[in-house]
Amino acid sequence: MLLMTADLFNGDMQKAMPAALAIETFHNFTLIHDDIMDNAPLRRGKQTVHEKWGTNTAILSGDVMMVEANKQITRVDVSVLKSALETFNATAQGVCEGQQLDMEFESRNDVSIEEYIDMIRLKTAVLLGGAMKLGAIVAGANEHEAGLAYDFGENLGIAFQLQDDILDVYGDPEKFGKQIAGDIIANKKTFLLLKLDELASQEDKVILEAAKQLGAQDVNSKIAQVTELYNRYNLREIATQEMKVYLDRAFQAMDGIKVPEAQKKEIILLSRQLMNREY
Amino acid sequence: MLLMTADLFNGDMQKAMPAALAIETFHNFTLIHDDIMDNAPLRRGKQTVHEKWGTNTAILSGDVMMVEANKQITRVDVSVLKSALETFNATAQGVCEGQQLDMEFESRNDVSIEEYIDMIRLKTAVLLGGAMKLGAIVAGANEHEAGLAYDFGENLGIAFQLQDDILDVYGDPEKFGKQIAGDIIANKKTFLLLKLDELASQEDKVILEAAKQLGAQDVNSKIAQVTELYNRYNLREIATQEMKVYLDRAFQAMDGIKVPEAQKKEIILLSRQLMNREY
Repeated sequence: MLLMTADLFNGDMQKAMPAALAIETFHNFTLIHDDIMDNAPLRRGKQTVHEKWGTNTAILSGDVMMVEANKQITRVDVSVLKSALETFNATAQGVCEGQQLDMEFESRNDVSIEEYIDMIRLKTAVLLGGAMKLGAIVAGANEHEAGLAYDFGENLGIAFQLQDDILDVYGDPEKFGKQIAGDIIANKKTFLLLKLDELASQEDKVILEAAKQLGAQDVNSKIAQVTELYNRYNLREIATQEMKVYLDRAFQAMDGIKVPEAQKKEIILLSRQLMNREY
Repeated sequence: MLLMTADLFNGDMQKAMPAALAIETFHNFTLIHDDIMDNAPLRRGKQTVHEKWGTNTAILSGDVMMVEANKQITRVDVSVLKSALETFNATAQGVCEGQQLDMEFESRNDVSIEEYIDMIRLKTAVLLGGAMKLGAIVAGANEHEAGLAYDFGENLGIAFQLQDDILDVYGDPEKFGKQIAGDIIANKKTFLLLKLDELASQEDKVILEAAKQLGAQDVNSKIAQVTELYNRYNLREIATQEMKVYLDRAFQAMDGIKVPEAQKKEIILLSRQLMNREY
């Protein structure tokens, strides 16, 4: 996305490469550390770094990848160096804050929809926005245009994450590539669960709380009960509407970018493909 | 040391502050992650971050401190930004590599003195050298002078670390501020132990190996036996000579810096104080 944004602004993609490598390396560093924190055994179908090499090596590998990312971003043209660094550092800080909020939410029972959107914004969408803004900066776009590129990426990222919440319940297991209903099984506070909490009658809240307590032996019953509540409160539709709000904002930002429409074709195509996953 | 080096080159200390904050924050980030890896309960006489707040919070706090350090270094004057970043990133990478070597050495039985010196150079001395080089850079020193400042710091750092190995055995417990003989108890591969391995007769090697196996109940006997070997092979003197080699190199580098001697007074005084700890 960073390289495509550089191209959108007629930038030299080769010149954008250090920034792209910085984002890619940074992203993978956060995955390694997140996997430690989440105790995740698998990533992209393979053993996670901490599972294969031990937690200490995973911590230190992540640290040195962060340094490597900084070395890459330092290689951008000196005329945009300060601006690129500021965007890169703000992105990195947002992602760390998002992960912190995500962890805190696990033990909180009063997470609002607004807080949830802010968490997914920080944890996921800021990275996409930051990547696109960096692509714009290294291509020599002005501050206003770089801001629009950021807005496109951030809103697309929020929409993508909301879609992820929907697909967890309603996705095609063949195509989703993750365990279906994994969020339901883990009582993960998704948009659907938080909205259900908001809308459910006292009676249905009791049903929901009971379902949440169900363990590994009742997993199918748990999925069925929670999905039935989601269906009854129309949450697929509500979440889809919310997702579309952010998608619209993303494409509004793209509309504001003053380059010939033909130049936007590929980035819009990729974005549409991202949002037309399995349903 | 960074601020004093900026001052040495007639730099504005206020202008050097972002670089100093970057180094300070980076250093504390590495301590938080090192304490996780070393399973350390205490740091500066207080509970470590992972002990008090949990490992996940300690990992993430370290990560965001690294980002904060990068934000600080980005604030240096734009005329020296690229150079400051390159030095900062090289320093950070060296420290990570040093920590990796330190961990690897624990399970290796063939660590040479040369490898050990390189490990303490990376883990400790590079930070001091990098800090002083950054101080020189932000003060507008040229590349040659900044290199001399680096050489002073790096060699002083190696000398300091070798002194630490000596003080573990021969320091005054009242003044050292750490557990005396902690390295002996933990069979830590210090300069003294590695040199003893090199010099000891077959017979004494057998004594040493037996001493290493001694557990918590025989701790005093273990310390006495290893110290007796150190004494017999004159290792305090040998280590002190080695330390002085690096100290001489440090002060040679300082001699090469072309500023009035009076301006060097304070930085030399502090360095001498650092090296005149408890013996």
